Amino acid sequence: MEFVENSIGRLVPTEIDGRKLKPFKGAFAFKPKKRRSAFALEFAAREKLLPSIKDAIEAVGFEDGMTISFHHHLREGDYVLNMVLDIIAKMGFKDITLAASSLFNSQSEHLIKYIKEGVITAIEGGSLRGKLGAYVTTKNPLKKPVFVRSHGDRVRAIKTGEVKIDVAFIAAPTADEYGNCNGVEGKSACGPLTYSHVDAHYADNTVVITDNLVPYPATPITISQEYVDYVVKVDSIGDPAKIVSESTVITKDPVSLLIAKRAMKLIESSGLLKDGFTFQAGAGGISLAVTKYIHDYIKKENIVGNFGMGGTTKYLVKMLEDGVMRKILTVQAFDLYCIKSLKEDYRHTEISTSLYANIFSKGCAVNKLDIVVLGATEVDTKFNVNVNTHSDGLLLHPTGGHQDTAAGAKLTIITAPLKRGRIPVIVEDVTTVTTPGETVDAVVTERGIAINPRRNDLLEAAKRKKLPVKTIEELKNEAYKICGKPNPPKTTEEIIGLIEYRDGTIIDVVRQVKKNTSGIFEKII
Amino acid sequence: MEFVENSIGRLVPTEIDGRKLKPFKGAFAFKPKKRRSAFALEFAAREKLLPSIKDAIEAVGFEDGMTISFHHHLREGDYVLNMVLDIIAKMGFKDITLAASSLFNSQSEHLIKYIKEGVITAIEGGSLRGKLGAYVTTKNPLKKPVFVRSHGDRVRAIKTGEVKIDVAFIAAPTADEYGNCNGVEGKSACGPLTYSHVDAHYADNTVVITDNLVPYPATPITISQEYVDYVVKVDSIGDPAKIVSESTVITKDPVSLLIAKRAMKLIESSGLLKDGFTFQAGAGGISLAVTKYIHDYIKKENIVGNFGMGGTTKYLVKMLEDGVMRKILTVQAFDLYCIKSLKEDYRHTEISTSLYANIFSKGCAVNKLDIVVLGATEVDTKFNVNVNTHSDGLLLHPTGGHQDTAAGAKLTIITAPLKRGRIPVIVEDVTTVTTPGETVDAVVTERGIAINPRRNDLLEAAKRKKLPVKTIEELKNEAYKICGKPNPPKTTEEIIGLIEYRDGTIIDVVRQVKKNTSGIFEKII
Repeated sequence: MEFVENSIGRLVPTEIDGRKLKPFKGAFAFKPKKRRSAFALEFAAREKLLPSIKDAIEAVGFEDGMTISFHHHLREGDYVLNMVLDIIAKMGFKDITLAASSLFNSQSEHLIKYIKEGVITAIEGGSLRGKLGAYVTTKNPLKKPVFVRSHGDRVRAIKTGEVKIDVAFIAAPTADEYGNCNGVEGKSACGPLTYSHVDAHYADNTVVITDNLVPYPATPITISQEYVDYVVKVDSIGDPAKIVSESTVITKDPVSLLIAKRAMKLIESSGLLKDGFTFQAGAGGISLAVTKYIHDYIKKENIVGNFGMGGTTKYLVKMLEDGVMRKILTVQAFDLYCIKSLKEDYRHTEISTSLYANIFSKGCAVNKLDIVVLGATEVDTKFNVNVNTHSDGLLLHPTGGHQDTAAGAKLTIITAPLKRGRIPVIVEDVTTVTTPGETVDAVVTERGIAINPRRNDLLEAAKRKKLPVKTIEELKNEAYKICGKPNPPKTTEEIIGLIEYRDGTIIDVVRQVKKNTSGIFEKII
Repeated sequence: MEFVENSIGRLVPTEIDGRKLKPFKGAFAFKPKKRRSAFALEFAAREKLLPSIKDAIEAVGFEDGMTISFHHHLREGDYVLNMVLDIIAKMGFKDITLAASSLFNSQSEHLIKYIKEGVITAIEGGSLRGKLGAYVTTKNPLKKPVFVRSHGDRVRAIKTGEVKIDVAFIAAPTADEYGNCNGVEGKSACGPLTYSHVDAHYADNTVVITDNLVPYPATPITISQEYVDYVVKVDSIGDPAKIVSESTVITKDPVSLLIAKRAMKLIESSGLLKDGFTFQAGAGGISLAVTKYIHDYIKKENIVGNFGMGGTTKYLVKMLEDGVMRKILTVQAFDLYCIKSLKEDYRHTEISTSLYANIFSKGCAVNKLDIVVLGATEVDTKFNVNVNTHSDGLLLHPTGGHQDTAAGAKLTIITAPLKRGRIPVIVEDVTTVTTPGETVDAVVTERGIAINPRRNDLLEAAKRKKLPVKTIEELKNEAYKICGKPNPPKTTEEIIGLIEYRDGTIIDVVRQVKKNTSGIFEKII
């Protein structure tokens, strides 16, 4: 295997499994030359409703070696991925490539089993999580490395044809017998179905699986019948209690609250919080706290924002309802409050992952962000951020929209504690680079704020406001003083994962871990 | 030029201007083999708002010989097509192909002028209308025949790459500076923007022209920023009084009302008017009367329809509001009442022309129609319908959704008077075949109802209800008895128009007319 050093100094392979790879050259360096993947035309006026998933698998002419996809809007409550895999396995198919938008812990046992049995032999895009990630990182059981992609990068890879989906399976909370479907109605409502948009448009075959079959036409139409081959009705596509995340509550941890308050002060000092501002904050405890602080601040100051974007929670919806935010753009719903708002509020719009973050378009929505607040498992002194692995080298988290929003926003703030337990978070070199430092403006910790030297304007503004500014090296030194210098994970030479940047270049690799000794894995799942 | 006889006996050319043509083989005969046209990827995070249309034309690198497109949602009120052509002409560009979704009378003078000057040398898809049509049919001034396409066929031709749009100009009643736009808000609101959907997705360059620039993001998002290169703000994109058609009133003509009543009786006899039925009726006087009759009937009978589709008028919206129709799918708005409903009523959905009628998809919405009521300039004894030309041979009308809905619906009814003035409407052979007889189930006139022999079930049902059934030959004979046998138009050998069927095959040709002697042209524009 040949390696080249990419622009942030990581050695990455030039080719994997016959596929040429491009090294990362900078967050805004790569210009695409090729055209979008063409896809099959079809002439169809036939019936699409089939009695079972097995019938649909037969109808599409399923074969060994195919690539299949799923969306993850049902999160830990999803039944569909496991159901479909069970049937595919029972029918005796092997050598399947799984190209889901993300994989959750509730699927780990199934997936590990089917990897062991040779049913699944490759994983493309979306990302690993939890137990499955630990399994793949330590055992290297797949025939090629996992491609880890951001939300935008997954769309890009499918649109360019790098990922060719043979069959997209779409869990649909509401659908009609001709394939129109949405996620805002039905007992398994999950809000948007935006992760599946690109799958439906580009897959050779698309199968909609629903537990709420309604008279034609099912509206609103998130996925159009134009792209759907078959529809199957099942008893249940998911567990409603687990579809909607429980995590959308503001942190009560004093350290986290301190970090959130400091992030808020930095945002204030940036001067971006003026009429028409835009922002995204995720569903983590710190992000939610920042959202609440922004809400309180702009209400007091009579500022109205143009849009909030998310991973949407009730905290963002309340800004809309309170008149301090004009619009919401939603890619994913984290609570029932969001789903209700998405369905009923004209100002709240579901957007495709392509509109959200596809870098190879005529401009995606992340480009219009003023402020984004993001998390990290590690940040290094070059401001590179790791959200994929832990310091033990295990690939445990998806990239999500991290790379996309960091590159798009005018102000990208990483919030993180200096350390977690005895593990430093601010380090000399992150274990794995997810997001390049050139797209990160500041790191906010409970011990101080480090501002990227590229942003002298922000540094001056923060100093004027007397914020506790330190250099990133100072923060790293403090972390090392408390925790000691961390040992890099013990790995083999085998590459188990390729971290793609959002433009399809390779920003880093993840190598097989010899032994999981850190103990942190048990804590985080 | 070589000709072959197509399946309905018309001689059509096998090649025009270097492009291979396929003869029509039957409404459901042609199966596509090729893949969808691929289009350019672009990496963009730049500003898109430009001060003028001229700037946008310069920015896209405009050249002689390019193909440009427009939508026709602003109908007779549109200012944008004329504005853009004026600028292109003033900048000295020549040899432009115009690929608008349709052309209106208010544009005729401009277009004739620019054809004479060599600015426009070809017209693709959409259709001619009125004065421009008469000019093209009599003068043959273009360098190749006009391709006349249905709504669905235009989408198909663009998606397959047969029509390659260099620059799509989109008149947008509301837009933001990054290109998101919709037609439901703003002083020039026109309802949907669905005709432009495919243009934006497939054009190399897309320019949005708006008179209502709103803060980002403009929602609802009908055309996404992903596909927009530049945005231009102008004072006015159209005349609101003419954007919304004045024509949406039920006919008061006694002959038309008689035809409408008989069509209603035929629909009743068909047995299709039961719970969950679906239908489309256009905005013509007879169609509106039928819509009203259906409304009254199903209300009385406690029947609720699943959806109405249109060209939507207040008569269809009132069915929704009255609870006798569950959903509306709208491709075009004909009155303010429709626009308001589209914006405010969750059950009323804007659909793309692709979802509406693209035959080369996994199933379009016309496939789900039970009943469609359509008009005709002529119907012949093979049930072939002409909506494009008149008996004088002039190409005066677009195809619209005629071919699409006729092929899709379970019951396709053509309503037409036996004659117009001294011109027979029911004839031995239509001057031009728009819609093949195999997709037409019945012709309803004031002198009787003719049912396609293919539909013996319908014939029996109509007889049971004692409807005034006649053969199509009887109707033709009655017409000829009153009007005399019509003379075919005197034409040269030159082909000025190619009538495409919705699958891209050639169903008929229109030849240059030697002299416009019928006088009917003055009447209809």
